[in-house]
Amino acid sequence: CGMSPAGLPPASLLALAAAALAVAAVAAWRRPRPLREVLFFPSPPCCLEALLAEAPARPCPCPLPRADTSLSRLVRRLLSARRSLDLCIFSFTCPQLARAVHLLHRRGVRVRLVTDAQYMGLPGSQIGRLRRAGIQVRHDQHSGYMHHKFAVVDRRVLITGSLNWTTQAIQSNRENVLVVDDAACVKPFLDEFERIWEEYDPANYSFPKVGH
Amino acid sequence: CGMSPAGLPPASLLALAAAALAVAAVAAWRRPRPLREVLFFPSPPCCLEALLAEAPARPCPCPLPRADTSLSRLVRRLLSARRSLDLCIFSFTCPQLARAVHLLHRRGVRVRLVTDAQYMGLPGSQIGRLRRAGIQVRHDQHSGYMHHKFAVVDRRVLITGSLNWTTQAIQSNRENVLVVDDAACVKPFLDEFERIWEEYDPANYSFPKVGH
Repeated sequence: CGMSPAGLPPASLLALAAAALAVAAVAAWRRPRPLREVLFFPSPPCCLEALLAEAPARPCPCPLPRADTSLSRLVRRLLSARRSLDLCIFSFTCPQLARAVHLLHRRGVRVRLVTDAQYMGLPGSQIGRLRRAGIQVRHDQHSGYMHHKFAVVDRRVLITGSLNWTTQAIQSNRENVLVVDDAACVKPFLDEFERIWEEYDPANYSFPKVGH
Repeated sequence: CGMSPAGLPPASLLALAAAALAVAAVAAWRRPRPLREVLFFPSPPCCLEALLAEAPARPCPCPLPRADTSLSRLVRRLLSARRSLDLCIFSFTCPQLARAVHLLHRRGVRVRLVTDAQYMGLPGSQIGRLRRAGIQVRHDQHSGYMHHKFAVVDRRVLITGSLNWTTQAIQSNRENVLVVDDAACVKPFLDEFERIWEEYDPANYSFPKVGH
């Protein structure tokens, strides 16, 4: 009497069901919410000193608002890197984004930067400055462009879109940037980064023969 | 005897638990798999005639392979539109992608196209051809670029990335295109499209005053 068909007393069965439900509820609650952020540009001018200062600094005297903008959100996402930042940027002239990348490098984050050979030499390019700061930079050797504009933070968060890292694009263009942590999106970009990084290894560069 | 604490016979309790499990399993199984596709370019040359022919046609005699490439996948995604295609394309010179858009228009899909005023007039641009075919086109009136390169299929699937719809980009550049149906990603792009579509309404265009 009082045994269920499974051979357990009914009270145990009820307790078991309750426990299973509780485990499922906790699992659903603990699953981190997926990261899906979409940023649109142009982004209004704003002061990023509070974000980019290396040490706690006195408040910036500039008249720009310290507003929450698409650019400030992008900078925050980059500065969240703790271990690595893998960058593939076609055109990179924005001094603030270069400061963010430089700051990460000084904090010990492993920064790797891939860029386009033709665009890295244009006026205003930040590539030379970042290279002189000790950041590893590689570039293509093709006639086609290395036209990607993506970043992967800590091999976990993908930042990608139409936006080149130029002041013109940030302040004047209609642009989009998507921030996601979905592994099905991030993994292919990580693989593409590693492919490009190997392919653009300076050991593979060829140089035109110089005549006598 | 034989009643559980809930007042049900133990067999009913077991049946109830089994039914709950079955419902959960069916719900998990019926949930459509999220769409996450990443396409990288350059894409090798391939023949798209079989995809782009309006009616069943004799096999194309061209020597190009009919391979599964990033470009053919992009075309397939576009041609899956049944009701609407919303396009924001900075530079559009690729004849095959123009054929795909034209084909959708002839099939009765509502196509809306936003582009950049400066780039739509460049040699090779497909915008004039699509406009003459009766497709609605709107463009900016700014000094900044309308630099987006995204499409939304049936208000449900987002296609976005670094790729301009040019033959040069498809065949020669390192580029990415992300295809997702996550509403948290798609919705902001739909909203951006509607914002731009209204803002670029020809009724809002201003024209420089002409002197006497």
